[in-house]
Amino acid sequence: MALPQTNTVVRIHPGKLADIRVEQLPTPTIEHPDDAIVKVLKAGLCGSDLHAYRGLEPFTEPYICGHELIGEVVALGSAFGQEVEGRPALYGKLKVGDKVVSPFTCSCEECHFCRIGFPSRCVHSLLFGSPYLPGAQAQYARIPKAGGTLFLLPPSLPADMPEESFMLCGDILPTGYFAALQALGHPNVAPIIRGESYPGVMGAIVPRVQEEGTRVIKEDQKLGVAIVGLGPVGICGLVALLDILSQANVQTYKVYAVDPVPARRAKALAILKKMKPEEAAHVEVLDIEEAKEKVTKETVKGCDAVLEIVGNDSALVLAYDLLRPFGVISSVGVHTSPQFPLNGDTLYTKNVSASFGRCPVRAMFPLAVDLLVRRRDVLAGVGGEEALVERVIPMSEAVEGYEKFDSRVWGKVVFDPWA
Amino acid sequence: MALPQTNTVVRIHPGKLADIRVEQLPTPTIEHPDDAIVKVLKAGLCGSDLHAYRGLEPFTEPYICGHELIGEVVALGSAFGQEVEGRPALYGKLKVGDKVVSPFTCSCEECHFCRIGFPSRCVHSLLFGSPYLPGAQAQYARIPKAGGTLFLLPPSLPADMPEESFMLCGDILPTGYFAALQALGHPNVAPIIRGESYPGVMGAIVPRVQEEGTRVIKEDQKLGVAIVGLGPVGICGLVALLDILSQANVQTYKVYAVDPVPARRAKALAILKKMKPEEAAHVEVLDIEEAKEKVTKETVKGCDAVLEIVGNDSALVLAYDLLRPFGVISSVGVHTSPQFPLNGDTLYTKNVSASFGRCPVRAMFPLAVDLLVRRRDVLAGVGGEEALVERVIPMSEAVEGYEKFDSRVWGKVVFDPWA
Ligand SMILES: NC(=O)c1ccc[n+]([C@@H]2O[C@H](COP(=O)([O-])OP(=O)(O)OC[C@H]3O[C@@H](n4cnc5c(N)ncnc54)[C@H](O)[C@@H]3O)[C@@H](O)[C@H]2O)c1
Ligand SMILES: NC(=O)c1ccc[n+]([C@@H]2O[C@H](COP(=O)([O-])OP(=O)(O)OC[C@H]3O[C@@H](n4cnc5c(N)ncnc54)[C@H](O)[C@@H]3O)[C@@H](O)[C@H]2O)c1
Ligand SMILES: [Zn+2]
Ligand SMILES: [Zn+2]
Ligand SMILES: [Zn+2]
Ligand SMILES: [Zn+2]
Repeated sequence: MALPQTNTVVRIHPGKLADIRVEQLPTPTIEHPDDAIVKVLKAGLCGSDLHAYRGLEPFTEPYICGHELIGEVVALGSAFGQEVEGRPALYGKLKVGDKVVSPFTCSCEECHFCRIGFPSRCVHSLLFGSPYLPGAQAQYARIPKAGGTLFLLPPSLPADMPEESFMLCGDILPTGYFAALQALGHPNVAPIIRGESYPGVMGAIVPRVQEEGTRVIKEDQKLGVAIVGLGPVGICGLVALLDILSQANVQTYKVYAVDPVPARRAKALAILKKMKPEEAAHVEVLDIEEAKEKVTKETVKGCDAVLEIVGNDSALVLAYDLLRPFGVISSVGVHTSPQFPLNGDTLYTKNVSASFGRCPVRAMFPLAVDLLVRRRDVLAGVGGEEALVERVIPMSEAVEGYEKFDSRVWGKVVFDPWA
Repeated sequence: MALPQTNTVVRIHPGKLADIRVEQLPTPTIEHPDDAIVKVLKAGLCGSDLHAYRGLEPFTEPYICGHELIGEVVALGSAFGQEVEGRPALYGKLKVGDKVVSPFTCSCEECHFCRIGFPSRCVHSLLFGSPYLPGAQAQYARIPKAGGTLFLLPPSLPADMPEESFMLCGDILPTGYFAALQALGHPNVAPIIRGESYPGVMGAIVPRVQEEGTRVIKEDQKLGVAIVGLGPVGICGLVALLDILSQANVQTYKVYAVDPVPARRAKALAILKKMKPEEAAHVEVLDIEEAKEKVTKETVKGCDAVLEIVGNDSALVLAYDLLRPFGVISSVGVHTSPQFPLNGDTLYTKNVSASFGRCPVRAMFPLAVDLLVRRRDVLAGVGGEEALVERVIPMSEAVEGYEKFDSRVWGKVVFDPWA
C-alpha cells in the first residue's frame, strides 16, 4: 500500500516560547530493516511535552512533538516476517494492519538493559518527540527497533473501550504503575506488607542464619502511602496502587493523595468514585497542610512510602517530610532544579531509600494493559472532567490544545490526526 | 556485688579541638528498671568518634566517648528476672555475669521500628558516646532499655576468638554487612542475581499477570559491585559481600574495591589473602582512576550496585559514576556536606536507587555474629597490620590512641579499661 506523500504533524519551533505549529512534512519511510511505519490513530498530549513548550528544555531545530500513540502498522522493514532465534518475537509476528501502542522511548529488547527489564535505559533508547526522534503527534510515525519497541494489542479488546483510552499505556499509566510498584516492592516496606522483620525479609537473597524470628505484630501492619501530585500520572499511580494492594490482598492501609490545586483534587475524587467503595474508603484526598497534619496524627512518624509524581523541589521536600524513618520515596517526577533540596545528612538521619527516573514503560506494558482493561470503568472513560482523557480534539487544533492544557484549563488532551 | 565508686572513663571536652581526657567519674547506677550496668571488658575506637574530635560535630558539655563494647553484666534493673509476655526475652533471661555486646545505639525492641527491624530508628534510640548518652570508653557503662539493646553472646564461643574481636559486632561489622545486604537485596539487582526480568522479580508483591516471560540470558548475570572506601567498615562490607554471595551460590561476579589511600588498599589485600582463593579471585583492589577505567571496560555501563562507605561528596560522585542505569547505591557514610553533590536531573537520568543512613545494628546482630564466628580466620585476628583490630592498648593511653588513629598511623584501636 503506497502511503500519501505528505504527513500532517505538530512541530515545536525554537527561538520563541510555545511556538507550536501544525505543518505538512514528507511521510516517514523505512530507514532501517527494524523500522515500522505506524499510522497514528490517536496521539496524546502529555505534561512532559510542556517542558520544551515552557522553555525548560533548550533545543535548536524544530521537531515533531508527542510520545503517546495508538496506531496501526502500515509498513514494516525487511527484518519483519521471519522469526529469528534470539530476536524479539514481534519481528516474526507483526503484520501490516495490527494495532499497537508504543512507549515514549524506543527500545531494542536485545541489549542487556532491555533483557533485565529496564528498556527505558536501552542502549538504543531515544525519546519520541525530542530533537533526536520525531514524535507521535503526526499522521504517520516511524518506530525504530519496532520489534522491540511496539506492543501488540490483544486482537479482542472489550467493545466498551474507546481507542483513545489506550493512549494511557504509552506513558502515564505504566509510569503511575511503576511509581506504585517501585514503592511497594521495596524491601523496607516488606515488613509492613508481609509481616516479617528486617533483615529476615531479605531471606530470598541471604540464607537465614540464626535469625531471632519476626517481632512484627498486627498493629505494625498498617501500611501508609502518600501520593504527592495528582496530575494525570499521579491519578494513574493512585489507581495502580489500589489495584496492586487489592490483588495482593493487603487489607489495612491508608493512602494520602496530595495536591495543592483544588481542581486536581476534585478530579482525583471523581476517579475514586468509580473505584470500588471498599477501595476508595482507604484514600483521603488532601491539600499539603492537611496531609502533613493527618500523616503526623495517624502514622508512626510518617508513611512507609511516598510516590513523588510532580517534579519540583517542594514535592521532594514534602515527600521527605511525610516519610517515616527507613521509608521509601519512589520518584518519577522530572526534576530541573540545579540543586537537590535534601542533603546527605537529612537523607542519613531518616534512613531514606529513594528511586528516581524514567519508567521502563515497555517492560510495564503487560501489567499496564491488563490494568487498563480490568479497570476500564475507572480508567478508560473519555470526555468530561471525570475522565482521565478529558477531550479528543482534531490535531489541527493543536495550538489551542497546548495552550489550554498548559494553563490547566483542560486536563489530558488527545489529538485525532484524521479529524 | 557492690561496684567500685569510681569509674575511669575517656571524655571529650568542648572549647578546643581534640580535647580527650582520661578521667575519674562516679560509677553509673541503675536509673530505670530496664537498665543494665555493664563492666566494659574492651571498648573500640571508631571512625565515628573522630567527628566530634575533629570539630565536625558541635557540643557544649564534656561527655564519655565510644560506642563499641564487649562487656559483662554486673547489675540489672528491676525489670529483669521475670519473663513478661510481649517484652523482649532478655528481660527474663539475662543474668549478672553474662557476656554481651551492644550496638552503637540503645533500642527498646518494643516499638514499631524495633519490631519491623529498624532499631537504629527506635523511638527510644540514643547514640552511645554522644551528648545524650554516656559512651563505652569506660570501665562501667549504663545500658538503657538493656533487654532490647544488648545481644547475649552464645555461651560457647570458639576458643580461638579473642574477646576484642567481638568489638567488631557493635558497629563496623553489622554496618558493612548491612551495606552489602541493602545493595544485593534490592529488586533492581535481582534480575542479575536471580535471572528474572523486571518487573517480574516483583512477583512476590504483584500477582503475575500477562507477563511476557524473562528475557535474561546467561551473560546478563555477571554481577558487578563496587565498594567505595576501604576503611574498617569498608573492609567489613567487602568480607560480608563475598560471604553473602558465596552463601547465595552466586558464581559470576566481580567486586571493585576502591580507596585512594595505598595503606588502606594494602590492608584490604591482606584481609583478602585470608579469604578462600576462589572468593578473593573475584575482587580487584583499586585506586579511583583504576576503578573508573576497569568498570568502564568490564561492565555494561557500570556496576549493578555500589557500596558508599566513606561519607564525603567525592565518594558519592564516584559511586554515581561507577553505577549502571537502574543501579543501586547503598550508602552508609555519614555525610556533613551542606549540599548534595547530585541533583534531581542526574538521579533521574541514571534511574538511581539509593539508600542512606544508620545501620539497624541490633537487627543485624544474628547475621553479624554468625559471620564473625564462621569467618573468624579472616575477621577475628587481633594485632598487626593484617588484622582488622590492629592493636589493643590500655585505656589510660587513650589520648595517644585518638591521635594515632586520627592521623591514620594506626588502624582500628581497642581500649582495655583494666590494663
Ligand atoms: N518518570 C517517567 O518516566 C515519567 C513519565 C511521565 C511523566 N513524568 C513526570 O511525572 C510528573 C507528573 O506528570 P503529570 O503529567 O501528572 O504532571 P502535572 O504537572 O500535570 O501534575 C503535577 C501535579 O503536581 C502538583 N504539585 C505541584 N507541587 C506539588 C507539591 N509540592 N505537592 C503536591 N503536589 C504538587 C500540581 O498541582 C499538579 O497537579 C512530571 O514531572 C512529568 O514530567 C515522568
Ligand atoms: N551508617 C552507619 O550506621 C555507620 C556506622 C559506622 C560508620 N559509619 C560511617 O561509615 C564511613 C566509613 O567508616 P570508616 O570507619 O571505615 O571510615 P574511615 O574514614 O576509616 O574510612 C573511609 C575510607 O574512605 C576512603 N576514601 C575517601 N574518599 C574516597 C573516595 N572518593 N573514594 C574512595 N574511597 C575514599 C578513605 O581513604 C578511607 O580509607 C564513615 O562515614 C563512618 O562515619 C556509618
Ligand atoms: Zn508523557
Ligand atoms: Zn535495548
Ligand atoms: Zn562506630
Ligand atoms: Zn524501639
